[in-house]
Amino acid sequence: MKVSIVSIGDELLIGQTINTNASWLGLELSSIGARILQVLTISDDPHQIIRAIELSESDLIIVTGGLGPTKDDRTKKVLANYFEMPLVHDATTLKHIEAFFARRNRPMLQANIDQALLPRGCEILPNQWGTAAGMWFEGKGKSLICLPGVPYEMKGIFSEEILPRLKKRFTLNALFHRTVITQGIGESFLAERIAKWEESLEQQNLSLAYLPSPGLVKLRIGSLRGSEDAALINLKMDELKTLIPEFIIGYEGDTVAGVVGELLKKFQKTVGTVESCTAGNVASSLAGISGSSDYFRGALITYQTSLKTQLLNIPATFIEQYDVVSFEVAKQMAEEGRKQLRTDYCLSTTGVMGPSKGDSQDEIGTVWVGLAGPFGSDAKRFIFGDERSRNIDMTTLAALNFLRLALVEQAHNYRK
Amino acid sequence: MKVSIVSIGDELLIGQTINTNASWLGLELSSIGARILQVLTISDDPHQIIRAIELSESDLIIVTGGLGPTKDDRTKKVLANYFEMPLVHDATTLKHIEAFFARRNRPMLQANIDQALLPRGCEILPNQWGTAAGMWFEGKGKSLICLPGVPYEMKGIFSEEILPRLKKRFTLNALFHRTVITQGIGESFLAERIAKWEESLEQQNLSLAYLPSPGLVKLRIGSLRGSEDAALINLKMDELKTLIPEFIIGYEGDTVAGVVGELLKKFQKTVGTVESCTAGNVASSLAGISGSSDYFRGALITYQTSLKTQLLNIPATFIEQYDVVSFEVAKQMAEEGRKQLRTDYCLSTTGVMGPSKGDSQDEIGTVWVGLAGPFGSDAKRFIFGDERSRNIDMTTLAALNFLRLALVEQAHNYRK
Repeated sequence: MKVSIVSIGDELLIGQTINTNASWLGLELSSIGARILQVLTISDDPHQIIRAIELSESDLIIVTGGLGPTKDDRTKKVLANYFEMPLVHDATTLKHIEAFFARRNRPMLQANIDQALLPRGCEILPNQWGTAAGMWFEGKGKSLICLPGVPYEMKGIFSEEILPRLKKRFTLNALFHRTVITQGIGESFLAERIAKWEESLEQQNLSLAYLPSPGLVKLRIGSLRGSEDAALINLKMDELKTLIPEFIIGYEGDTVAGVVGELLKKFQKTVGTVESCTAGNVASSLAGISGSSDYFRGALITYQTSLKTQLLNIPATFIEQYDVVSFEVAKQMAEEGRKQLRTDYCLSTTGVMGPSKGDSQDEIGTVWVGLAGPFGSDAKRFIFGDERSRNIDMTTLAALNFLRLALVEQAHNYRK
Repeated sequence: MKVSIVSIGDELLIGQTINTNASWLGLELSSIGARILQVLTISDDPHQIIRAIELSESDLIIVTGGLGPTKDDRTKKVLANYFEMPLVHDATTLKHIEAFFARRNRPMLQANIDQALLPRGCEILPNQWGTAAGMWFEGKGKSLICLPGVPYEMKGIFSEEILPRLKKRFTLNALFHRTVITQGIGESFLAERIAKWEESLEQQNLSLAYLPSPGLVKLRIGSLRGSEDAALINLKMDELKTLIPEFIIGYEGDTVAGVVGELLKKFQKTVGTVESCTAGNVASSLAGISGSSDYFRGALITYQTSLKTQLLNIPATFIEQYDVVSFEVAKQMAEEGRKQLRTDYCLSTTGVMGPSKGDSQDEIGTVWVGLAGPFGSDAKRFIFGDERSRNIDMTTLAALNFLRLALVEQAHNYRK
C-alpha cells in the first residue's frame, strides 16, 4: 500500500507550526507496512488541493487540516466539490456535537452546528475528541481520507477508525526496517568502520541509511521486500553488534533518557540532578519517561551563581577561584546534590550557553558535566557551538550519556 | 517569488525525524517576502527527485538532504545527471575539507575527499560548518538550490550565501502578515466574538487564519498584495486589541515564557519554580529565553513525594491529609520555594500526568498550579487529558500564564 500525506495550512508553509502530524502518521503507517510515497504541504487553495489529489501516484491519500469551525477552514468544501457530494446535515454528528458542548456546559454556536454539514456519500469517521468529523472518500479512482489538523483529534480518529479499516482492506506487507542508535562516533568514521558489513548489505539488496542528529547517529537497515527479509535483517543486526559494541546505545525508538531509566530500574538505583546551564532540561528528560518516579527523585536548579552558594553550600570564594564553569564546581554540584537529594547518582551541568557569556570567563559553548555516584565523583568537559538551544540539547544528551556509561561500567564490574 | 521546498530522506517520511528544516526555511523565506508554494518530502529515489523538479510551478526550488559522505546520500549524483553537469574535484572545497579535519585533529577518509566532487557548472556555496558544500543550479528553465540536511549547516549556508543572493536577484514584495496570540478563549467563541471585525477584513481582501495549539489560539491577518497593505493591517490589529484585550498575550513569535520574562525585567522582579509533575519543564522554559539569568534564579524539583518533605519541610502528615495533588500542597510548595530561592515570585506544579496514577488519589489529568508573590499565595486547579507529554506542556503553559496574569494585574495596580 502506497500512501501520500497531504498537510494543509499556511501556518505549516510559513514555518509558524512544525508538521508533527505528518511525522506521526508516517511512523504509524510505516509500522503497519504501508509505504509513504510523499508528504506534501500546501496552502488551502482549491487549485493546490485538487492538483495534489490528481497528481498523486499512491493508493491512498490522507489529508489533514482545514476542518475547523472558522471561515479559513475550506478543505471540506473543496473535497465535497471535487467528489461531487453535496453537503448535508448529518444527524449522528450533530447529536455528538450537541453532547460535546452540553458536557462542557458551553453554549453552541452556528459555526459548531455547521460542522455537522458533511458530504453525502463519504464515510463519516466519528471524532470523539472534538467536533470536526473525519471523512473517507471513494470516487474518481481515488481513495482519500480527510482528518482534522488538531493533533490529538487526528491521532484519535486514525487509531480508532482508520487503522482497523486499513488492516481489513489492504494486505500489508510490513516494510521491515530496524534501527540502531550510536553515540560517540562521527558519521564518516562509522561508515569507514562498517564498510565491509555495509557492502554485504548491498549484495543482499538491503538498504542502509545514516541518520545523524546532534550527538547521535542512527543506522537504519531496511528492505522493500518486507517481512520476508526479517530474519536476514536480524542476522545483520547481530553482526553489527559485534562490530561496534562500544558505540551502540539502543535500538528503534529508544532515547538515552529511556535507556538510562531501564538501567536504573534494573539495578534499583535512584538519580537526581543539579543543573545550572540546562535549567531543568536533564530533569524533565528523565521525568518524561513514563514510570520514572521509581528512580528519578528530583533536582536542584541553581541557575544564578549565588544559588550555588545558598542551596549547595559551595563557597563564593571557591566558585571565584575555579570559575563557575569548571571541573571543580561541576564535581561539587554533583556531590552536594547526591547528599541533599539522597540519591545513588547525581548529574550536574554548568556551562556557557550563549548568546551572552554570563558569570564565567569561558568561551560560549564550554560545558562541564559532573557525576557523583557510589564510585566517587568525576566531571567531563565538552565544547559545543554558539547556538543556545542546540547547546542545551547537546549538554542534556552528554549528561544522560555520562550516567549511561557509568551504569554500563558498573554492570561490567558486577559481572566480574 | 514563489518557492518550493523539497526535503529528501526516508527518515522524514517514516516519521523518524521531524521536518524542522522546512519550517525554518519557511519562516526565513516568508519573512523576506517569498511565497512558499509547497513543501514536498520524498525519498532519495531518482524518479521522485526528478518528478518533483519537473512538476514544480515555482520560481525557485530548494532541496535539502542527501549530501552526506555515506553511500545512502544520492542527491548530488541525481542532480548532476539531471542538469547534465559532470562531477569534478573542486580545489577550493577540497582545501576547506582538509582544513576542517586538520583543525579537529582527525584523519581524513576517502568519503570525505569525495565530498569535494561537485557538478561542474553549478555555483558552489561554501559550507563553513561542515564538509558538504551547497550548490546552486541554473538550467532546463529551473533555478534549484541544494543544501545539506544537517540543520545548522543548512541554516549557516542559507544565511551567509543564499539570502544575500536572493535579495539581489528577486524583487521581493514582503508578504505582509501579523499574528496575535490569544489565551483563555476557544476557537469558535473567539470567531463569534470577532465575527463583524472578521467580515470587515474580508471586505478589504485581507485573510484571517485561526491557528489553535494546546492552550492557545493564534490569529494571523495576511495580505497577498504584500507590504502595500501594511498600514491597513496595523489598523485592523489596533481594532482587534480593543475587541479582545483580556485574551491577547502577545504578538508574532512571542511565547508565554518570553512575555513573562519581559514583564519581570520591566518590574525588576525575580522568579523561581518548585515543580513536581512538570519536573523542570517550567524552569527550562523560563531559562530557554536568552537573558533569563537576569530574573530566573532557579528551582527545586521535588518529583518524589518524600522530597517535598525533605527539601520543602512540608510535613508528610500534611501531604497525606490534603493529598499530594491539592490546593494546600501547591500553595505550600510555592511559598516554601519563594523563601528558599529568595525570589519575588515562585510557581509550583503538582499533578497526575499519567499513564499511571502515582501517589495521588486524583484522576489522571488533574493538576494544581500554585503561585506565591508579594501579594500572598494562591493555587488554581486544571483538568487536562490523559496524554502524558501533552499534560506536561499544558501544565507548563498554565503555570507561566498564572504568573503572567499576576504580573499584568500588578501593573494595573501600580497605575491606579
